[in-house]
Amino acid sequence: MATQYSVSFDIAAEPVEVPGGTLLTDAAQKAGIEINQPCGGQGRCGLCAVQVTSGEVRRRSTMRLSAEDVEQGYALACQTIVEGDLSVIVPPQDKIQQHLTTGQSAADVSVPPGYDPFRDQTIQRISLELKPPSMEDQTSDLARLKKALRGKADLGLISVSLPVLQKLPIVLREDNWKVTVIIYRDVETGAVEVIDLLPGLTSEGDPLWGTAIDIGTTTVKVMLVDLISGEEKGQASEYNGQIARGEDVISRIIYAGKESGDQVLRELVLDSTNQLIKRACKRGKTKPDRIYKTILAGNSTMMHLLLKIPPASIRLAPYITVANHLPVLTAEEVGLNTYSQGKVICLPGVASYVGADISAGVLSSGMADTEKITLFLDVGTNGEMVLGSQEWLVTCACSAGPAFEGAGVMHGMRATTGAIDEVWINEDNLEISWRVIGNEKPKGLCGSALISLLAEMLMTGVINKSGRFDFSLDTPRIRKGSHGGEYVVSWADETEIGEDIIITEVDIDNLMRAKAAIFAGFTVLGDSVGVPLESVEQVLIGGGFGQFINVEKAIQIGLLPDMPWDRFQFLGNTSLKGAYLALLDHHDKDRVAEIASRMTYIELSADNRFFDAFTSAMFLPHTDKSLFPTVNPGGKS
Amino acid sequence: MATQYSVSFDIAAEPVEVPGGTLLTDAAQKAGIEINQPCGGQGRCGLCAVQVTSGEVRRRSTMRLSAEDVEQGYALACQTIVEGDLSVIVPPQDKIQQHLTTGQSAADVSVPPGYDPFRDQTIQRISLELKPPSMEDQTSDLARLKKALRGKADLGLISVSLPVLQKLPIVLREDNWKVTVIIYRDVETGAVEVIDLLPGLTSEGDPLWGTAIDIGTTTVKVMLVDLISGEEKGQASEYNGQIARGEDVISRIIYAGKESGDQVLRELVLDSTNQLIKRACKRGKTKPDRIYKTILAGNSTMMHLLLKIPPASIRLAPYITVANHLPVLTAEEVGLNTYSQGKVICLPGVASYVGADISAGVLSSGMADTEKITLFLDVGTNGEMVLGSQEWLVTCACSAGPAFEGAGVMHGMRATTGAIDEVWINEDNLEISWRVIGNEKPKGLCGSALISLLAEMLMTGVINKSGRFDFSLDTPRIRKGSHGGEYVVSWADETEIGEDIIITEVDIDNLMRAKAAIFAGFTVLGDSVGVPLESVEQVLIGGGFGQFINVEKAIQIGLLPDMPWDRFQFLGNTSLKGAYLALLDHHDKDRVAEIASRMTYIELSADNRFFDAFTSAMFLPHTDKSLFPTVNPGGKS
Repeated sequence: MATQYSVSFDIAAEPVEVPGGTLLTDAAQKAGIEINQPCGGQGRCGLCAVQVTSGEVRRRSTMRLSAEDVEQGYALACQTIVEGDLSVIVPPQDKIQQHLTTGQSAADVSVPPGYDPFRDQTIQRISLELKPPSMEDQTSDLARLKKALRGKADLGLISVSLPVLQKLPIVLREDNWKVTVIIYRDVETGAVEVIDLLPGLTSEGDPLWGTAIDIGTTTVKVMLVDLISGEEKGQASEYNGQIARGEDVISRIIYAGKESGDQVLRELVLDSTNQLIKRACKRGKTKPDRIYKTILAGNSTMMHLLLKIPPASIRLAPYITVANHLPVLTAEEVGLNTYSQGKVICLPGVASYVGADISAGVLSSGMADTEKITLFLDVGTNGEMVLGSQEWLVTCACSAGPAFEGAGVMHGMRATTGAIDEVWINEDNLEISWRVIGNEKPKGLCGSALISLLAEMLMTGVINKSGRFDFSLDTPRIRKGSHGGEYVVSWADETEIGEDIIITEVDIDNLMRAKAAIFAGFTVLGDSVGVPLESVEQVLIGGGFGQFINVEKAIQIGLLPDMPWDRFQFLGNTSLKGAYLALLDHHDKDRVAEIASRMTYIELSADNRFFDAFTSAMFLPHTDKSLFPTVNPGGKS
Repeated sequence: MATQYSVSFDIAAEPVEVPGGTLLTDAAQKAGIEINQPCGGQGRCGLCAVQVTSGEVRRRSTMRLSAEDVEQGYALACQTIVEGDLSVIVPPQDKIQQHLTTGQSAADVSVPPGYDPFRDQTIQRISLELKPPSMEDQTSDLARLKKALRGKADLGLISVSLPVLQKLPIVLREDNWKVTVIIYRDVETGAVEVIDLLPGLTSEGDPLWGTAIDIGTTTVKVMLVDLISGEEKGQASEYNGQIARGEDVISRIIYAGKESGDQVLRELVLDSTNQLIKRACKRGKTKPDRIYKTILAGNSTMMHLLLKIPPASIRLAPYITVANHLPVLTAEEVGLNTYSQGKVICLPGVASYVGADISAGVLSSGMADTEKITLFLDVGTNGEMVLGSQEWLVTCACSAGPAFEGAGVMHGMRATTGAIDEVWINEDNLEISWRVIGNEKPKGLCGSALISLLAEMLMTGVINKSGRFDFSLDTPRIRKGSHGGEYVVSWADETEIGEDIIITEVDIDNLMRAKAAIFAGFTVLGDSVGVPLESVEQVLIGGGFGQFINVEKAIQIGLLPDMPWDRFQFLGNTSLKGAYLALLDHHDKDRVAEIASRMTYIELSADNRFFDAFTSAMFLPHTDKSLFPTVNPGGKS
């Protein structure tokens, strides 16, 4: 057995004992401390650095640390092994903002016209008054129940799970053979399953609960729905607890491959989701264990991680999922805190990087029902897009990276309180003004501000088409920094963080790569079906991020194609809306599957056209000026 | 909170702390001591008596204790409450014999002629070589597997459970896309479920494992079967661990109604069963987790207790089960130690007291396929019987009680080593000779010896038709005891137990009630369909007990109807044999269900004819001498 060592973290209540060879991140976890690992514990991001003030450690990697840092005891917690009794200082972690503004995240849904819970819903509630048994009628409880059910409705094969059988005799006798039966209909086979029994009869209008859930890489959103009226009765959203173990899907897949990493990630997302279910239930004045059906949408990696299906093949060529179409599960199997025998239906995805969130998004966007050639775009941590109409659908995903979510940008941050979300640069004096979420002192720049800033800098000549600064301009805001050129958005004394908020050439490069990847995606999609971008009749933008994009500025930097603004429409969280529709109406659920199987997936990583298009788009707005006739960059360049 | 008291048991390693108000049986359990409760903790049998040598207790009941016993501190552990610190002496418990003789219990089965595992078996093994994925073929693992499966066999809807999905990507890549798939076919719907995946290909002849299990009130029997060859590969049997909490089904139902009694009973029978599965696997040179299918037979109470379905309604008028037809379950749901996703199929029963053991017995007896009017009889802890042929079937159960298993008889015992199993009384001197199982000194009398003894005493005039002793006879073996008349079978110095082995008038009365109940059952069955007993063309006797009955003597006491011996046939464990057949061939499984639904159940407790017939049968052999023309009781009476 390995020797045990004592590790004291400055911010922990007590030291912990761990065997020699333990990773510092694991020791910290044992001490109840969460050290963020945005890169998934690969030693790439350097953000898990801690200071070892005494004791022996072995550093596997010091990639992001200077010799001086190491001299002072700094070590990457995810790459450092305990080899003696230690004292460790944990620097303040980049705190994950605890709550999203509800206003920002709430999806706006309305009950589909003509929704009929008795026709469209797979969960049904049936009240029965049974004839009590007697010596003349010794039918078993189960046969009695089934007979009465058949008398009420035209049902197929009826099955009952063991947990329901275990409570059957008690519930039947609790209110003198009056009982409410909750059934789930399998529309495909016609089979019916009794999933719950409640003593007594129920009024027809009483609510019957379901949830639509969207599990995003960054955010989890839960919507509580009354399946009888079809109305939304409460929403809640929150960062996905997995963020601490990797900001993007790739980092998480790597983390999942570590010992019990898959279990940790599963528990983190379940914990986030179950908290949200509780919160939504509080708003809807009900309880999680009264929820009988859940529809889950999310990208393929999130689905795999939630269900603890090994996601490794998503990351490695030829980039395949274990499954796009998942079986109907119970809440117990998934680990949700809703009614244990309640149904959990995972909507189907198309491929590794075009998941159920996109199938659901296409459904709720309506693009699969229109004659108009439509471009559907979901820019989140990845950039997924679908081109098509009711006739055909092609889709692809570009690893745009999370730059537009603020990652990989020095002062980038998520769109929470303190984030600058819009900027304007004065053409004459190159001074800048900005707007901050929550009207506080700024802490950083969120995605919409980054687009805006890039556009403003381009249009005022602060940067040229290649994203390089014009040092000849007469402004103290343009200067040389340690990472090359930089522009000061906000002086230290104006900020919350006490340092200048800047954007560097490295940041600009990252943003240009992201926008180039997305635009190259459009190009390849159009190319693959012979539809030039200018024939696109509407552009539908989904995803939380989409809501806050300034179209004019997004066109100026070449992120969106140059077309009249009235062709653009922002749809909000199309994935959650799709899940909501599928929750209510099984026809819609089946349509998601049909849409998923109709979409032709184009793998960009294997497509030379993509690399060509990407290279051409690595300018602002583009090397081919004719694609952006309305954009006229300013300045002297 | 209740005060905590310390309870010291003389045979426990350490005292235990329990709150005031705890039952002594529960305190004993906490101390790791099992106190037998043959009556299920009702305070009826008196066998859980312990001696409290110091401290305060409250006795709810002292039914079986004399004033003197109570004076000496004796208390019924199941009825006595801790009210202070205690010292308790636990008398030696009537030890349950640990192992049945294998020779006695092994069921003799042979592979049904023409058994074809590919046609008849619901579990199939398919070896597949998949085309590996590539950038040109990004099909998901699951879709790839399903496609290859469809290429090999004509399959319906294919489903895969979550645990299988969780290992799918690992297993597919473990042996380079060669994989063996285990599927379960739902014959009714045509649906197919992938229940397991193994890396690599498998030879066609390799065994594929299943088990047939019979859960009896007294004994659990497990048979390991190779589903490919159909051959039995190992058997094991053992007392049902629930015996310690009640000898008969009624006592167990009462015990199940106590706090967590249902959980205790479930764990006891699971423990017995899982031990037996291990033992059978050892004999068959395999492991429990390689068993993919289990067929369970057993009486209705055993099925309810195993699955923790509340059995209370079985015991109370109108005596109904919660369910006779149970859903297909997984080993995980049931709690068996076989492969977690393996299928467990509970055969269907008919009613509270005619369970799956009888449906299975009727199948394996062949009575449902013959033109001959057949009486099928299973005498175990209860007496169940079926009359009929391929045209019709009627059934009933009589609460014969466990007298023929040795319970309720002073020196009765089960058929294990040391039990007298056959006796002969000399007509001239009324001396007796006997045979003992295992050739040891006798400890008591098992069921077959009790039948034999009753018959011999009747035929030699030791007792008369009413079961009363003839004290006028010149033999020291007939004497008056504390329970009325008695006959000494074995003098103290000849026995293992150091006291006379006797049979009393109370014992005889209990045995007569049991045989009268069974004979009354025959009478009512025949009566209900207008078939007199003499038209019965064959009598098939199942159940472990049946094997050892001496037909001549059983007729002499009026337990079996008086007909030529060649009409009787002993079939051994018909329930286990039926489970074996259903394990191999799904047609046989369906036939059990069909038989169960064809059987007309006659409830004797509501039938006045039964009471009349019972009263008439409370003589040896019967009040109606014409029913037993060959029986001529001897002696002077």
